[in-house]
Amino acid sequence: MNRPTLKDIATRAGVSVSTVSYALNDNSTLPLAASTKARIKAIARELGYVPNSLARSLQARSSRTVGVLLNKRLTTPRYAEIAQGLSEGLADRGFHLALLDGPSAARSVDDTRGGRLEGLVFIGHDDHKVPADLAEQVGEHDVPFGTLDCGPATGPSRWSSVDFDYALGAEQVVGHLVDQGVRTIVHIRPEVTSRADEIRTRAVETAVASRAGTRMRVMPTGMTNDVLSHVDTDPAAMWQYVEDLSRRLDAELASGEDDPDTTALLCSWGGDVETVYRRSREHDGRFRVAALASGILEPLLWPGLSYSRLPLHEAGRVCADLIVDASTTRPSPAQVLLGPALDTGHHLQI
Amino acid sequence: MNRPTLKDIATRAGVSVSTVSYALNDNSTLPLAASTKARIKAIARELGYVPNSLARSLQARSSRTVGVLLNKRLTTPRYAEIAQGLSEGLADRGFHLALLDGPSAARSVDDTRGGRLEGLVFIGHDDHKVPADLAEQVGEHDVPFGTLDCGPATGPSRWSSVDFDYALGAEQVVGHLVDQGVRTIVHIRPEVTSRADEIRTRAVETAVASRAGTRMRVMPTGMTNDVLSHVDTDPAAMWQYVEDLSRRLDAELASGEDDPDTTALLCSWGGDVETVYRRSREHDGRFRVAALASGILEPLLWPGLSYSRLPLHEAGRVCADLIVDASTTRPSPAQVLLGPALDTGHHLQI
Repeated sequence: MNRPTLKDIATRAGVSVSTVSYALNDNSTLPLAASTKARIKAIARELGYVPNSLARSLQARSSRTVGVLLNKRLTTPRYAEIAQGLSEGLADRGFHLALLDGPSAARSVDDTRGGRLEGLVFIGHDDHKVPADLAEQVGEHDVPFGTLDCGPATGPSRWSSVDFDYALGAEQVVGHLVDQGVRTIVHIRPEVTSRADEIRTRAVETAVASRAGTRMRVMPTGMTNDVLSHVDTDPAAMWQYVEDLSRRLDAELASGEDDPDTTALLCSWGGDVETVYRRSREHDGRFRVAALASGILEPLLWPGLSYSRLPLHEAGRVCADLIVDASTTRPSPAQVLLGPALDTGHHLQI
Repeated sequence: MNRPTLKDIATRAGVSVSTVSYALNDNSTLPLAASTKARIKAIARELGYVPNSLARSLQARSSRTVGVLLNKRLTTPRYAEIAQGLSEGLADRGFHLALLDGPSAARSVDDTRGGRLEGLVFIGHDDHKVPADLAEQVGEHDVPFGTLDCGPATGPSRWSSVDFDYALGAEQVVGHLVDQGVRTIVHIRPEVTSRADEIRTRAVETAVASRAGTRMRVMPTGMTNDVLSHVDTDPAAMWQYVEDLSRRLDAELASGEDDPDTTALLCSWGGDVETVYRRSREHDGRFRVAALASGILEPLLWPGLSYSRLPLHEAGRVCADLIVDASTTRPSPAQVLLGPALDTGHHLQI
């Protein structure tokens, strides 16, 4: 028997070919009775109908798969949340998300030109911008491309970007701390060179300067570009960093002159919160701890903890829409800036 | 000009066609001088050579993409770690990982039969086994398939599986607690019906019964199948659960008769650790807290905390190898059982 066609199914079901097509396409928006849909699907299965999606893809030059360049691990909550949002957003448009684990930029661009992927999304992070060779090839070959957390695209190659309003987050957190009676902010920040960290540092300084009677001092965490390149893959390096950060905090608070009621510890990085919160509890006072991004501790459970929560999930979803648009209707690039939300928790009332 | 071929590149570079092929294939194991490789790649780029991976895929019936059915969110650390291992393992074999966000089983099987995917991996979890319709279709159409954390496949449809030795983990944790002087174990466990939870419960009972002078009691967390179906998508339901769990723990410890030096709180679920550890610190004593899976708190930082760490990352890697094998050489299905590691932390020595 020949491979069954839509027409074979339509004949058997006593409906039109287009009704069969609608019934077998889960993304169809045509209203069709669930029972009709189920019946047509059952007949298709019975006849052994196979939608040859790959052949269809080639015909339409469409694999309906977007590649995500993430050189960080999913085990960092920040990237897991972004990937989750991207995956949901792509699924809503009928696309798959393919994780590109460490391939060369050239390979990814070739995969997109060759049709295995329909577009690329690059997820930035503190030590990592769009590599020059990737930017060049994306521009040269006009590959559908978008970035997340890398800053707006500039120069001759332009593409859509989704970013976080770090400055607004810093302003919100400092405002909250001052409202709670804080007068001294210890800004605990890394020594890496990154766009996001420069924005955060300036914004904290501005927010403190604009509030009379408030002062700040800086405590560097010891996180340099060099340390950063090791901690992800080397647990000993991570533990060394945590110990070092704990010692720095001890030294910072050693004078005993800081009043826990009016002093807050403000982490630039959410990843430092567990260490800083834990260590601050070793000291007499219970200092407020805040961060310019979420850490793993839940503010609902831990008193005195507050975050600027970046809309990571939403950013993934928005980025998914932009890359699908870029690969289909090819609109002008969009630059999206998403504001964070202040999470001050509340505590068990029991 | 016609589309350039490998021969055009070979002629220009003054090498053989197979050398060009090796040079352009990043996965080639043939030793080739880096300078030769770079020169050939530069010529390929200059001539505008495009490896049409999709056409090549169709020809070879090979998209080199494996679909992962994960109906839980990547934001749960457990699944992020598994996905990370899978992604790395697949990348090592030259495959992409496609996240299949909530598609129907039928759709995934069709995508695999049609060539858009080369195999499927199903990630199980406490309330979720391989759906009957998926098992049926995988068997019927002989689709390359593997499971992770679902238990070994039984019945007529068989496939490769990777699982965790939960019983060994329970034995290790109870042994450690007893070595530390613990005589009473409060087993804090969910009320869901799942294979893993049944194994864990029996194993804790056996481990306690085999140690003279040790006793246990059970504290249900209030996590039922019904609650579980809500907490992932409804933050209010999650918070309600955390409050409820905190109240239960208060009631459990209210008598004040438990000696923190000889009593431990043993969570079946890593996800309960943050709440239990935090809440236990509200009480006079500093009870040891242990869990049969990792939670988010780092035992290196929090005194008295220990985990059975499931080899989630390794499981992902092993599963990647099994599914790639299944889609290529089609060996007999393998049943892999991985043992967990005891993580008792150590504390800042400063």
